[in-house]
Amino acid sequence: MHNYKIVVSYDGTRYKGWQSQKLTDATIQGKLEKILERTVGRPVKITGSGRTDAGVHAKGQTANFYLQDYYEPEELLEIFNQYLPEDIAVRSVKEAGERFHSRFSATEKTYQYRIHTGKIPEVFERKYVYSLAGQLDLERMKQAAEYMTGKQDFAAFCGNRHMKKSTVRNIYEIRFEEVKDENAFLMGQGCGEIRIIFRGNGFLQNMVRIMTGTLIEVGEGRRCPEDIPVMIASKNRELAGHTAPAQGLMLMEVKYD
Amino acid sequence: MHNYKIVVSYDGTRYKGWQSQKLTDATIQGKLEKILERTVGRPVKITGSGRTDAGVHAKGQTANFYLQDYYEPEELLEIFNQYLPEDIAVRSVKEAGERFHSRFSATEKTYQYRIHTGKIPEVFERKYVYSLAGQLDLERMKQAAEYMTGKQDFAAFCGNRHMKKSTVRNIYEIRFEEVKDENAFLMGQGCGEIRIIFRGNGFLQNMVRIMTGTLIEVGEGRRCPEDIPVMIASKNRELAGHTAPAQGLMLMEVKYD
Repeated sequence: MHNYKIVVSYDGTRYKGWQSQKLTDATIQGKLEKILERTVGRPVKITGSGRTDAGVHAKGQTANFYLQDYYEPEELLEIFNQYLPEDIAVRSVKEAGERFHSRFSATEKTYQYRIHTGKIPEVFERKYVYSLAGQLDLERMKQAAEYMTGKQDFAAFCGNRHMKKSTVRNIYEIRFEEVKDENAFLMGQGCGEIRIIFRGNGFLQNMVRIMTGTLIEVGEGRRCPEDIPVMIASKNRELAGHTAPAQGLMLMEVKYD
Repeated sequence: MHNYKIVVSYDGTRYKGWQSQKLTDATIQGKLEKILERTVGRPVKITGSGRTDAGVHAKGQTANFYLQDYYEPEELLEIFNQYLPEDIAVRSVKEAGERFHSRFSATEKTYQYRIHTGKIPEVFERKYVYSLAGQLDLERMKQAAEYMTGKQDFAAFCGNRHMKKSTVRNIYEIRFEEVKDENAFLMGQGCGEIRIIFRGNGFLQNMVRIMTGTLIEVGEGRRCPEDIPVMIASKNRELAGHTAPAQGLMLMEVKYD
């Protein structure tokens, strides 16, 4: 058996998420598995580093699968990209060790959430940003984000209310990047983009989106940075902010030792 | 009469170009005029700095129109962006002098053409780039571009074979920007992006796309940089290269004194 590791980019707009589903073939995993099945003549299961929700994008989703016969990685790369739709691309194929598992072997994940602010809509990046008409107080958001880092029980930021496994995760860093929009200079509309980069050993279901929704509420002045430790201690999803929309979220990279 | 100058961004993918047409309302000018007509209660003609072809994008198309009654520019900006589809945005509205004409008063235009090279398809920017599987020799392209600058008769690069007016234009600069793709490091596929920026006092129909198609043929080794002066001297469209696809082209900026 040969174990292959692949890195996949996708525009999640048209898809019901990463994971295969019985009633639809509009999943990224499903599209990849169908191509492999046609190539090797039998069903092949692909394991992703984690699910991404419907509408979420990825630059560096990682997955692995086993094939009985040997194929050149370069050959598999070409087959995938020949048959994939234009909103999915396989960026690399490598043979991995027999024990490599895209989910269990992962040591770090990076997500990016993009928020566009201001009155002038963003045309070209519209499917990859969450648009807010108002302004955000970035300093308050940074203060709030400080409370969200470290090894903590993030049950309050978990979208799955029936989660039975541990909700403890270690968030290494939450970083902000501000991109000034040229529109800002045209009309003084304060247009711009805020990118929030989350780096951690793993994330719960909807966790980045709930963290982002909460940070936005802090940036809008509807909550205080000091509310964060209270939310976390409560382990109660009701106390955290709203779930920010899927379209602003991108899985950037999955790291392995 | 009040003369308003507007700057418009659009993703041209879904449109039949800038200019209004009788048989379709899928034009950018048409969408803008319809909103103005509804706002002021009578038809309003919008004049663009020039037509863009079907599928061509714009970050800074400029246009003007006259209204009998005074509207606050800020109010017009809001009305436009409230009713426009998500792939068109008005970036600014200003009152201009009575004699301002978006086409005749223009002194400089900048276009950008984006080419993605390499075997791994570009997912997120796919609608704004022209994808080529092979590699391009940038140095040869730069040499060829040198011959395309200056005040010359560009009849050989004009898509309109029945052009009766002057085909002399002054091209101030053709600049290249190379954007290295992270994919390049993953598989050594030589993935990357080349942006060609054209700045001139005006451009003929399809001119930037024919120049780009010709530069690509030079970069692929199918033509020599020294062929360019011969093409230009011939004034014969047949001798120049192919018309590069619309989707890679973006009108960046129109300047006025």
